[in-house]
Amino acid sequence: MKNGNLFSVNDLNFIIKSTGNSFNSEFGEWISNEKIHELRFGENWKEEFIKKSFSSDYIQNNLGFKNRYWVKKKKDGTFPSSVDLMADAGKKALENANLQPSEIDFVISVTTTSPRYTSSTSTLACNLLGIKCPSFEMKSGCASSIFSIIMGGNLINSGVKNVLLLFGETLSRILLPNSNMQYAGGDGGAAIILSQDTTKTKGIKYGFIGSDGTYSDLMGVKGPLPPTISAIEQNEYYMSYSGEADTFIQQLWDEIPMLLYKNSHIKSEEIDFLITHQPNINAISRCATAANIDSSKTIDIVKDYANCGPVSLINAFHLLQTSEKLKEDSRLMLVSVGGGISWGGCILDI
Amino acid sequence: MKNGNLFSVNDLNFIIKSTGNSFNSEFGEWISNEKIHELRFGENWKEEFIKKSFSSDYIQNNLGFKNRYWVKKKKDGTFPSSVDLMADAGKKALENANLQPSEIDFVISVTTTSPRYTSSTSTLACNLLGIKCPSFEMKSGCASSIFSIIMGGNLINSGVKNVLLLFGETLSRILLPNSNMQYAGGDGGAAIILSQDTTKTKGIKYGFIGSDGTYSDLMGVKGPLPPTISAIEQNEYYMSYSGEADTFIQQLWDEIPMLLYKNSHIKSEEIDFLITHQPNINAISRCATAANIDSSKTIDIVKDYANCGPVSLINAFHLLQTSEKLKEDSRLMLVSVGGGISWGGCILDI
Repeated sequence: MKNGNLFSVNDLNFIIKSTGNSFNSEFGEWISNEKIHELRFGENWKEEFIKKSFSSDYIQNNLGFKNRYWVKKKKDGTFPSSVDLMADAGKKALENANLQPSEIDFVISVTTTSPRYTSSTSTLACNLLGIKCPSFEMKSGCASSIFSIIMGGNLINSGVKNVLLLFGETLSRILLPNSNMQYAGGDGGAAIILSQDTTKTKGIKYGFIGSDGTYSDLMGVKGPLPPTISAIEQNEYYMSYSGEADTFIQQLWDEIPMLLYKNSHIKSEEIDFLITHQPNINAISRCATAANIDSSKTIDIVKDYANCGPVSLINAFHLLQTSEKLKEDSRLMLVSVGGGISWGGCILDI
Repeated sequence: MKNGNLFSVNDLNFIIKSTGNSFNSEFGEWISNEKIHELRFGENWKEEFIKKSFSSDYIQNNLGFKNRYWVKKKKDGTFPSSVDLMADAGKKALENANLQPSEIDFVISVTTTSPRYTSSTSTLACNLLGIKCPSFEMKSGCASSIFSIIMGGNLINSGVKNVLLLFGETLSRILLPNSNMQYAGGDGGAAIILSQDTTKTKGIKYGFIGSDGTYSDLMGVKGPLPPTISAIEQNEYYMSYSGEADTFIQQLWDEIPMLLYKNSHIKSEEIDFLITHQPNINAISRCATAANIDSSKTIDIVKDYANCGPVSLINAFHLLQTSEKLKEDSRLMLVSVGGGISWGGCILDI
């Protein structure tokens, strides 16, 4: 982070009008670690585990994953898409805000698993939602959660009334079968509506985003587009990453909270909740330690959802929004580090 | 357009610091209509044309396409990617601006033909350019040219010093072999740097963007992602579109200039040049007629480049910028209508 430029914002005024998510039984089902053990080692996985001295709790104890939601095949043989999930979450956010589709003025969609090559998921999703307004798809890895909130907040400050941010992922479709990767990834949708703040007291007190492409070639799905049969046969359309950027990523989880405190002059005791991207429990606890925020104030949904890409942070936000834990006038710290590598953090008054 | 919401901007202050393009013999080659006739009908295409009463000039006379640049296979059997082309164009824009990579504060990349599934082309391109700053990829079809200029201008107005917009396309890779589509698509790269305007006189006087997803499902590459062997075998990773949205698109080419005049109170005689997206000569002349702008002031590069997606408008801009035609203090009208459907227009003082 030290050698790159950041984009930072101060007092970006907006409210979180509503949130929504999609983990709907119409599109998918909940998959336990035991189910994945069975997928990988067959019905007699327990015997296999004893033979190989594997622990059935290893994944949960070391990475935090216990359950995740995966899309399930439809009758026609295809799978629900990230567009289906983001649109379903968007529908709920509209309902929760009591807004009509015609009241949405701008849409930004986010996914790392688009169902189509050339098309923007934003217009595909708006078509499902009956929304007609300018829209684009944003791609900046898992930190797109914070990138899109900052770009959306900027739009609100340019006079836009209601900005809908849509997030959808079908990571299960790019997890190499019979691999450890299967435990880590989940599907789902999330949405958030940003609106004008008449009180002029809410929004981002201070925040920033950054990217560094040094490791960009080493992360993600390596198969070429347009696709080739040989790349399919060589399993190249699955996620791969062999850890080259780990040190850099860990430093970011430490540095982002520090920089937020330093530049905002806000102290850790003034933060009500920390919501981070949810790649695994270690990243979350590392960030919480760096931010000096107690685990009781740290939103950890890894156990139930695994890593859902950019959906994770917004879903965690939605779950906090709809929980009894949240009081009015809360101050949140949001932090995300993801593929690209892109990252961001902000202090958000809601 | 009448039934949807638009995002409009007034007096968005910035300068065009520089532009660049990439149609480099290192990555590709120029392909004439005759070369495509030969690809389709073999070496004896002339005899075939006589037999079938085909006119070898039909394509140029009716759509305007004469030449286009296509990427060529490298020694290792792979093709240069849209990232290679956008980075090459970005390098030239940096040189033309006399800026170092470290002086770029924000990057937005645009492509409809990403070489990778999950990764953002923005960090892949920044890695090639040695740029470390926040970046994201934007997808909103061919109108992304205007979407990104407006979003970039907004960033300049939020205090960002230099925003680099990168555009790269390898449409040749998704043109169905042995089809008429081959004449229409070209590859290439283009780039533009937006910077602070100390004179406070330059930038967008008035502009707007919009989208309508009604036809989103019917345009673009239909094959699913992640890819399947059967979809490859059924040629589903090629562009397809059967004209359902034509009437709507034609109306937009008419309506956008009208709305720009109406809301800006600027008259057609005050416009020095019209630069549109370049899908074919008919769209350009339709827009010029609606805008009441003479063909001598309309930038038409269809003959030499064909339709290069979002690259087209920015390349046309670059070619005007580097031509003797352009005088200081020019006023441009930019108009684009493309996939999504997304569209935009603006009146830009440079």
